[in-house]
Amino acid sequence: MDIGTLIGILLGFGLIIGSIILGGSLGAFIDVPSILIVVFGTVAVTFIMFPMGTVFGAIKVMLKAFFAKPPDPKAMIKTIIDLANIARRESLVALEKASVEDPFLKKGVLMVADGTEEQTVRSVLEIEIAFMKQRHQMGQEIFKSMGTMAPAFGMIGTLIGLVNMLQSLDDPSSIGPAMAVALLTTFYGAVLANVVFLPIAKKLEHRSAEEVLFMEIAVEGIISILNGENPRITQDKLEAFLAPALREGSDS
Amino acid sequence: MDIGTLIGILLGFGLIIGSIILGGSLGAFIDVPSILIVVFGTVAVTFIMFPMGTVFGAIKVMLKAFFAKPPDPKAMIKTIIDLANIARRESLVALEKASVEDPFLKKGVLMVADGTEEQTVRSVLEIEIAFMKQRHQMGQEIFKSMGTMAPAFGMIGTLIGLVNMLQSLDDPSSIGPAMAVALLTTFYGAVLANVVFLPIAKKLEHRSAEEVLFMEIAVEGIISILNGENPRITQDKLEAFLAPALREGSDS
Amino acid sequence: MDIGTLIGILLGFGLIIGSIILGGSLGAFIDVPSILIVVFGTVAVTFIMFPMGTVFGAIKVMLKAFFAKPPDPKAMIKTIIDLANIARRESLVALEKASVEDPFLKKGVLMVADGTEEQTVRSVLEIEIAFMKQRHQMGQEIFKSMGTMAPAFGMIGTLIGLVNMLQSLDDPSSIGPAMAVALLTTFYGAVLANVVFLPIAKKLEHRSAEEVLFMEIAVEGIISILNGENPRITQDKLEAFLAPALREGSDS
Amino acid sequence: MDIGTLIGILLGFGLIIGSIILGGSLGAFIDVPSILIVVFGTVAVTFIMFPMGTVFGAIKVMLKAFFAKPPDPKAMIKTIIDLANIARRESLVALEKASVEDPFLKKGVLMVADGTEEQTVRSVLEIEIAFMKQRHQMGQEIFKSMGTMAPAFGMIGTLIGLVNMLQSLDDPSSIGPAMAVALLTTFYGAVLANVVFLPIAKKLEHRSAEEVLFMEIAVEGIISILNGENPRITQDKLEAFLAPALREGSDS
Amino acid sequence: MDIGTLIGILLGFGLIIGSIILGGSLGAFIDVPSILIVVFGTVAVTFIMFPMGTVFGAIKVMLKAFFAKPPDPKAMIKTIIDLANIARRESLVALEKASVEDPFLKKGVLMVADGTEEQTVRSVLEIEIAFMKQRHQMGQEIFKSMGTMAPAFGMIGTLIGLVNMLQSLDDPSSIGPAMAVALLTTFYGAVLANVVFLPIAKKLEHRSAEEVLFMEIAVEGIISILNGENPRITQDKLEAFLAPALREGSDS
Repeated sequence: MDIGTLIGILLGFGLIIGSIILGGSLGAFIDVPSILIVVFGTVAVTFIMFPMGTVFGAIKVMLKAFFAKPPDPKAMIKTIIDLANIARRESLVALEKASVEDPFLKKGVLMVADGTEEQTVRSVLEIEIAFMKQRHQMGQEIFKSMGTMAPAFGMIGTLIGLVNMLQSLDDPSSIGPAMAVALLTTFYGAVLANVVFLPIAKKLEHRSAEEVLFMEIAVEGIISILNGENPRITQDKLEAFLAPALREGSDS
Repeated sequence: MDIGTLIGILLGFGLIIGSIILGGSLGAFIDVPSILIVVFGTVAVTFIMFPMGTVFGAIKVMLKAFFAKPPDPKAMIKTIIDLANIARRESLVALEKASVEDPFLKKGVLMVADGTEEQTVRSVLEIEIAFMKQRHQMGQEIFKSMGTMAPAFGMIGTLIGLVNMLQSLDDPSSIGPAMAVALLTTFYGAVLANVVFLPIAKKLEHRSAEEVLFMEIAVEGIISILNGENPRITQDKLEAFLAPALREGSDS
Repeated sequence: MDIGTLIGILLGFGLIIGSIILGGSLGAFIDVPSILIVVFGTVAVTFIMFPMGTVFGAIKVMLKAFFAKPPDPKAMIKTIIDLANIARRESLVALEKASVEDPFLKKGVLMVADGTEEQTVRSVLEIEIAFMKQRHQMGQEIFKSMGTMAPAFGMIGTLIGLVNMLQSLDDPSSIGPAMAVALLTTFYGAVLANVVFLPIAKKLEHRSAEEVLFMEIAVEGIISILNGENPRITQDKLEAFLAPALREGSDS
Repeated sequence: MDIGTLIGILLGFGLIIGSIILGGSLGAFIDVPSILIVVFGTVAVTFIMFPMGTVFGAIKVMLKAFFAKPPDPKAMIKTIIDLANIARRESLVALEKASVEDPFLKKGVLMVADGTEEQTVRSVLEIEIAFMKQRHQMGQEIFKSMGTMAPAFGMIGTLIGLVNMLQSLDDPSSIGPAMAVALLTTFYGAVLANVVFLPIAKKLEHRSAEEVLFMEIAVEGIISILNGENPRITQDKLEAFLAPALREGSDS
Repeated sequence: MDIGTLIGILLGFGLIIGSIILGGSLGAFIDVPSILIVVFGTVAVTFIMFPMGTVFGAIKVMLKAFFAKPPDPKAMIKTIIDLANIARRESLVALEKASVEDPFLKKGVLMVADGTEEQTVRSVLEIEIAFMKQRHQMGQEIFKSMGTMAPAFGMIGTLIGLVNMLQSLDDPSSIGPAMAVALLTTFYGAVLANVVFLPIAKKLEHRSAEEVLFMEIAVEGIISILNGENPRITQDKLEAFLAPALREGSDS
């Protein structure tokens, strides 16, 4: 799993729980009906907003983004150079038997082995990238919508609690606890939106950019093989591509 | 009716009603004057904002989006291939007698049967699509405006209630219930905006994109028939178009 | 006057007044100093924001948009066809004596009668449309600014009321009414923004689009006359233009 | 000084002060430490946000916009026509001795007198316009930032006041006045943002557009002189340019 | 260090601390658990939002922006002219031995000395600029996100405090101080966002623009040397480039 996301979520929830225990008891912050209305209210609205297939697809996108091994552009460039050498020593047709793990790269290599024209190879692969980007954006949009809907349901829950409390002010001693419970949904909504939904939407954005870069390198590599370029030149070209990712955190 | 929307609205309202009953009585949350000011206040402002014809048109757009059968691109592609085969075996003129259910497809096929030029067929159909898109966008805009106006009227209602309550603080026992009633309009505004108007605006956006895709496939199919393309190639071309919809929820 | 705007404003204010009377007395909601600060505060800020000439121009734009007869594209197309027939039977010069009510159409027809080139006619009329659009946008912008400034002055007024009230808490019985009065400016600001300024800004947007469409039809018609096109073809062309307006509220 | 801005600011502050006096004493609304934190807090943050030179430049931009005579395009067109006549009667070189007040126009005229090519004259003057626009935009941006920072510091000040008040609830009679003082910073922030900073940012936008138009007319005039155009045609061309400004406030 | 930022931060915090001391004791505003939840909660969410390498890179970007010597375009132009003179007197190859401090300029000069083509030199340097811009933007985005997350965690902390306080209303004398502590996290969130994160994000934007301008001047200078342009003309060209920065704060 993505280590930064894990650390962030554990630290975020850890701080919140620690802060609760320091000032009172954790039990006072757990109210099952309040949790139900915020969590399932957000889910309900998501089903109104997005087609069902899209929602389930978004969950898959998220799981894959966090649990699948992140793409390794360096390894992929190595594979491409190996394939380029095979193509040079033997022939483009020989690529058909080469074992390629990445399904996207494989698809392109098989097209090349089949003698498909450059124009067609490029357009087929770029349509694939465009479709993937669209699925990713839909995923990000769903999490952003959940990030605006969780606080809305938090507020709705608090209004219900307030109205109920105000209807029966007879027993003054019950006002405090009733108000505390009413505030819990606002609390859940704020935590879900700011610690879970909105940050995940943002992380998905970066993951998507990474994956698109990875696939664009693959496309360039496949086209280079098709054109019978010198593998050394291909390597230089692909690593230049790689640069932004590797240098990203280096100097100003 | 669209099953996701139905589930979402039922679940959303179910959770809210369940949450109310759990903490008090449903009766305390029903106040007819408060409902009137939020619902009809929102409607009133919608009539100021948009031309009347547009508002009624938007209701039709919404009903059609939720109750009409969603477009089935696969069935349509099958129809187009059948028509292409007729055109091939017999002639373009023979299409005039073919039975085509979808009115948009029919319009295009009749133009082809009449011997209209490709340029004209395409531009007539694309203007049709552009007009439909504009009507759909107007519908989405109306629901978005209602989604911002409902909470505004909720707040106006609550302010009225608060001012009335503050004017007569003589009887302390009436403060709680008066304040509870004042909060109801805010509650109605939040529920209407977040469970009804804003999510529906979003769903309409997706429905519109679906329908536009459907019609764009029809246009491509009609042009292929006009050009006497091989039906097999036409089928491949149209199914490639179809891909994003079908693969949408599949893999990352 | 525009019937939808009238209905909307009457219904909106009717609901608010009804709601007030139902829960108290209308008198408690009328406080002249509070009205002055919200209304004239908004006006004052508008004078800082926009050049004075622009503000007065915006009022004219608004009055014309609501009280002038809405443009009737059908009648205008009929006029254009009549003019086209005159030009055909007699000559372009004969148009000079034709009576044309709409000043924009008249300007174009006179240019044609004078033997002006197509290029020049088109550019002169399109500059006219561009200037009108700019004036309209300025009008919309002014109402939008008023829609954000009215609640701001509402809040300023409420803060003044609260500070005054908090300074003299000696007499507990005066707290309620003082607070009620303090809230009135927030109430006025919310009503003005949401029932008057923002909805009118939106309606002006639609009116402007209508008028631009109307003028664009006129330009096409004038050019057709200049080119001596067959009046029947001109009519078809202009009515195609008309379609979005007429079909706007019809089917999805 | 710009008369609309003056009226607006006087009216705005007059209404606020009148409203304060009507309900209490002005003295209760003046608290020096509160004024210091809002005003200088906003200034401090502005220094973090923008380079110092830019901030001082923005003040100059603002003063010039409000106190300098607004550009008079009609007078400038007259000057240009006079220059064009000189150039026609005598020669382009004769322009060198002509007295031109406006520094921008002068710069262009001197270039023409020096026999500079049209291409160069135009590009030098347009770069000048582009730089001026950039400086103006920076000025608008600074006022907009102050308009968002003043309420932020207002809230920070109120939070400080509230925390101090809540720490010492022993003397109930001091709660009201303490809370009143706490609210003052929110009040100052709201007034500064909505009556001063945000409206001025907007007015600067309009002033900048006016000045850019003025300079664009000058550029066209200078180029016409350089090309030896008939002064009458030049006048027509420049007045067409002028139209939007003059007709701005006239009819819909 | 950047003097404006230093002054701004010292003044901002000085005003806040002064304002606290004036109305109470500074001790009442320091609550370690509250500081922890706001500061580390914001950090935690930043780790979920952005890849870890990017976060550490952003810190470097910020430190460099504030502590590194700001780029001095005038000195750099002087260096370029010196290099141009060397290239003229001796040869392009002689540049290899010239001592150039700025690494970016050095890279370009070495390429020129190596006889690289203009096309290649330009594209390599512009890719470098593009990568730097991207890193800078990521840095700005991180600070903006922290500026929205700090108030969110402030609110979460206050909700925790409120719920805890409401659960135990038995001892009335503890309500005030408990509420005061609950408000502290909101206070910390507001200060961090408005005095630190958001203003720094803005300043980074300006620093980035400055550095990009600096590097663009270098590129133009290097290309001029490569083309053997007259050093005097080169100087004029580069100083024209410089103009916006120097004239920024001068006149309207």
